[in-house]
Amino acid sequence: MGWEDIAADKKARIDKSIPDEWRINVKDQDDSVMDMPAKSGILSPEELEITNSSAVDLVAKLASGQLKSLDVTLAFCKRAALAHQLLNCALEFFPELALTQAKELDAYYEKYKKPVGPLHGLPISLKDQFRIKDLETSMGYVAWIGKYDEEDSVLVALLRKAGAVFYVKTSVPQSLMVCETVNNIIGRTVNPRNKNWSCGGSSGGEGAIVGFRGGIIGVGTDIGGSIRVPSAFNFLYGLRPSHGRMPYAKMANSMEGQETVHSVCGPICHSVPDMRLFITSVLNEEPWKYDSKVIPLPWRRSEEDIITSKLKSGGLTLGFYDSDGNKSHQFLNRTLTNDVDFQVTPHPPILRGIETVVSTLKKNGHKVVPWEPYKHDFAVDLINGIYASDGGTDVFSTLATSGEPAIPNFKDLINPSLPSVDINELWSVQLQKWAYQTSYLEQWRLRESEVGKEIDAFIAPITPTAAVRHNQFKYYGYASAINLLDWTSVVVPVTFADKTLDKKKEGYEALNELDGAVQAEYDPEAYHGAPVAVQIVGRRLTEERTMAIAQEIGRLLGNEITP
Amino acid sequence: MGWEDIAADKKARIDKSIPDEWRINVKDQDDSVMDMPAKSGILSPEELEITNSSAVDLVAKLASGQLKSLDVTLAFCKRAALAHQLLNCALEFFPELALTQAKELDAYYEKYKKPVGPLHGLPISLKDQFRIKDLETSMGYVAWIGKYDEEDSVLVALLRKAGAVFYVKTSVPQSLMVCETVNNIIGRTVNPRNKNWSCGGSSGGEGAIVGFRGGIIGVGTDIGGSIRVPSAFNFLYGLRPSHGRMPYAKMANSMEGQETVHSVCGPICHSVPDMRLFITSVLNEEPWKYDSKVIPLPWRRSEEDIITSKLKSGGLTLGFYDSDGNKSHQFLNRTLTNDVDFQVTPHPPILRGIETVVSTLKKNGHKVVPWEPYKHDFAVDLINGIYASDGGTDVFSTLATSGEPAIPNFKDLINPSLPSVDINELWSVQLQKWAYQTSYLEQWRLRESEVGKEIDAFIAPITPTAAVRHNQFKYYGYASAINLLDWTSVVVPVTFADKTLDKKKEGYEALNELDGAVQAEYDPEAYHGAPVAVQIVGRRLTEERTMAIAQEIGRLLGNEITP
Repeated sequence: MGWEDIAADKKARIDKSIPDEWRINVKDQDDSVMDMPAKSGILSPEELEITNSSAVDLVAKLASGQLKSLDVTLAFCKRAALAHQLLNCALEFFPELALTQAKELDAYYEKYKKPVGPLHGLPISLKDQFRIKDLETSMGYVAWIGKYDEEDSVLVALLRKAGAVFYVKTSVPQSLMVCETVNNIIGRTVNPRNKNWSCGGSSGGEGAIVGFRGGIIGVGTDIGGSIRVPSAFNFLYGLRPSHGRMPYAKMANSMEGQETVHSVCGPICHSVPDMRLFITSVLNEEPWKYDSKVIPLPWRRSEEDIITSKLKSGGLTLGFYDSDGNKSHQFLNRTLTNDVDFQVTPHPPILRGIETVVSTLKKNGHKVVPWEPYKHDFAVDLINGIYASDGGTDVFSTLATSGEPAIPNFKDLINPSLPSVDINELWSVQLQKWAYQTSYLEQWRLRESEVGKEIDAFIAPITPTAAVRHNQFKYYGYASAINLLDWTSVVVPVTFADKTLDKKKEGYEALNELDGAVQAEYDPEAYHGAPVAVQIVGRRLTEERTMAIAQEIGRLLGNEITP
Repeated sequence: MGWEDIAADKKARIDKSIPDEWRINVKDQDDSVMDMPAKSGILSPEELEITNSSAVDLVAKLASGQLKSLDVTLAFCKRAALAHQLLNCALEFFPELALTQAKELDAYYEKYKKPVGPLHGLPISLKDQFRIKDLETSMGYVAWIGKYDEEDSVLVALLRKAGAVFYVKTSVPQSLMVCETVNNIIGRTVNPRNKNWSCGGSSGGEGAIVGFRGGIIGVGTDIGGSIRVPSAFNFLYGLRPSHGRMPYAKMANSMEGQETVHSVCGPICHSVPDMRLFITSVLNEEPWKYDSKVIPLPWRRSEEDIITSKLKSGGLTLGFYDSDGNKSHQFLNRTLTNDVDFQVTPHPPILRGIETVVSTLKKNGHKVVPWEPYKHDFAVDLINGIYASDGGTDVFSTLATSGEPAIPNFKDLINPSLPSVDINELWSVQLQKWAYQTSYLEQWRLRESEVGKEIDAFIAPITPTAAVRHNQFKYYGYASAINLLDWTSVVVPVTFADKTLDKKKEGYEALNELDGAVQAEYDPEAYHGAPVAVQIVGRRLTEERTMAIAQEIGRLLGNEITP
């Protein structure tokens, strides 16, 4: 079989996994399909209520016996089936296995009158990079279709121990190294709020399914924005924890063994309390005893309490920047490899998003101070070189195995015209990375002494655009600079692009070619209604504090809501 | 100037740094110089008492005003001057700077009636890999002589904030990648207990000076045994913390930027309480705000308490192995790259050392169970490949800069006949490392379920020999396998080789060529009196627990003593 046949067969198997009674007519849908769960008639009112709940509420009801896992799982399976038909978001869908698992959990509860763990009976959706025993993990590569996994990834095994139910593995861009979700197996996944917008990537299937509430908590991965971009584009919360907080062992990946910048796992969800439920449930299983890269750091309530007590007296102190393209951010006495190539001014909706967060915080008594995106373009240049350090050998050899072509946008991050670096060059890059991280820590301390207060985190854009139109994702720097630092980042949804508020800037002079291309893409009409988010960034391994800050910002914005 | 002249000039400058009034006749010394501090007449009785104290006692007296930093510093400078004359252990000696620093600390105390920090006034010796502003860091390379440092290493800066006084930087083997201490600048550093024995390496100057009590706490680094071997060979305690516990930023190093296996900093000292003083003092400065690689993990008293409460009820459960060469340790169903090349049976004194610890623990009610050195030879083979992954480019190009030759033993660890690996090969090695670490964690869990108890740590040899004769250090595997795992290891001194107890085994059949060479080296007469130590190994980042266990073992052995 040629690669097209293998891909077509896989696509057909996915389609077939949806029972006939959950099928709908997908022709002639509106651009937005957000109302389809209610309109389709596939879900009962109870099932709609379940899928519109928070995960925190659901696990409480499952633990008290008010809800059965079978009912909850069935509701999410139905809504996920709609999601796949409307958004094209699944690479594996296995409702039968899920319902069997749910029945076993219900039987356990029946017998012992207690939940198996903190996630008892809760469906969790997974990016198709997580391995589940006996299922396929294609990760968007045609070459990997037909390989069945022999064991669970560590995170899957621990979620299972905690009581989670698995029912779907969601789509990704071929190779994962793109922030839109397209592959040669099922094609493109689209945004539930507007099919003309990207759902983001690489955890784009998670963004789409959770945004549509075909999932309540989805698990993605992030090495250059892949959790944060789909969260932002789908008006969701997302966590990119620092490396070593969540287990990653036994997962599929591109460029496996690359350790210069680590990909990390994290949740995409509807609120910080749901995010906290996920993280605390995983930490409760002591993942450091299963994956050598996990740091033995249980959930630190004391770190949350520090933020809580600041909220009660004195307030938070936060930095912010709305652009890495502001000339005043230029740093003296330094050599840039690419000068200003990696500076891009965000579109008007993103600038307004930052301004909204800053003014809301100030209005509520918090201190918000300007923050330098320190040597941002140096960082972006360095991490781009890391992504491409093998000259694309790993990903291009996987493509060659099946003969499939590369997807669009692919070469924006993995440029095969760059040569592979040798070991001594890699060590030099790693040394530069460490020096950069350490200098940025010094900048943080200096800024604190200027301000005279501890700075709790900073507020920054994630992308220069609201949920982007297809094939228009061009600039990863706002996200990827944070990956190079390995800092904790929490995505907070803020608002929606508004053609009446977010006019196109007249007479804007592009900073560079890339900035010009990004600015040219802005069209107030086309982006009207697109989700706008910010990231809250704390230093390394500050998940407890940064999540607490994000929760407060969401609360002040009024965005921590269930429908 | 040729390299010989540059080296000779540096050596002369070191010699000149010793004031005439601290000079002794170094001819015709006994093999052991341990009695020289008392015999030389250079130190007053008070100075002998100070240098024979514990660091914990000294900082208490400095903090209460009972002692002045000037007196303590002067005492250690004198004893260090003796150490260098007798052992050849210093690459930088700067008593004037130290005494100036001590006076400033005394003035601070006088003015504010309180110490500047937990190490107020305490002299700390440093391996010549730590940078101190305006001093040289040659690290044993002739090429680096004459380069003066522009700033302190992060650990030096934080120790300084905590009140430490610096007075000496000690010798290392050229490149650091050898466990004996020889370079072309000052030659060989010898063991204070017997000049025919090695002081170990690469933190060998620290082992020698602290063993001689010319230092009270010395700071070394370890990527393949370099803290543990000098600790073991000098009857000292030593800590190889997991990577990320202690700051390493802004230090000199070979193969800088190599991150596949990290070198780590740690103390070499006379007791676990002194070790704890060092670690808690550094953590107290929040090193994670200064070095991006440091994990934000303050000292966890609760982890120590777990061990303390086990000591009060039920006791500890520990694994042990005395050899990685035991055929019964062969693991089924695996492929070895080098089959049994990396298995070496320890000399009789080491086997007796392990047995002494095991029987002492059992006698005191603790549970001690056999432990599999899991795929030890695979691990040693893998880490040897990592050390050599650039084909020696980094170290050999530094040698070429000055023209100096490589030291003996050099090629045991860095084999220039091996080619450099490419990026994809490196990623494969890194993936194998992670898989190995993760499988070993699984073995740990399996062993716990077999034993039915949490296993707190395991007891293992550090080297196959007691303090080794010169140029006879051949096998790094007992130490380096732990580096590959990045587990916490604490060295506990146990006993001394004894020709009447430690007979040469008759009719021993060598496991392989290396084992044959190591066994041939054993001579009960020549090793009589050589220090014997074990390492106590806990999982990653278990410094609190592992140190508490090591302290208890030292207490039971009666080795936590001051002279």
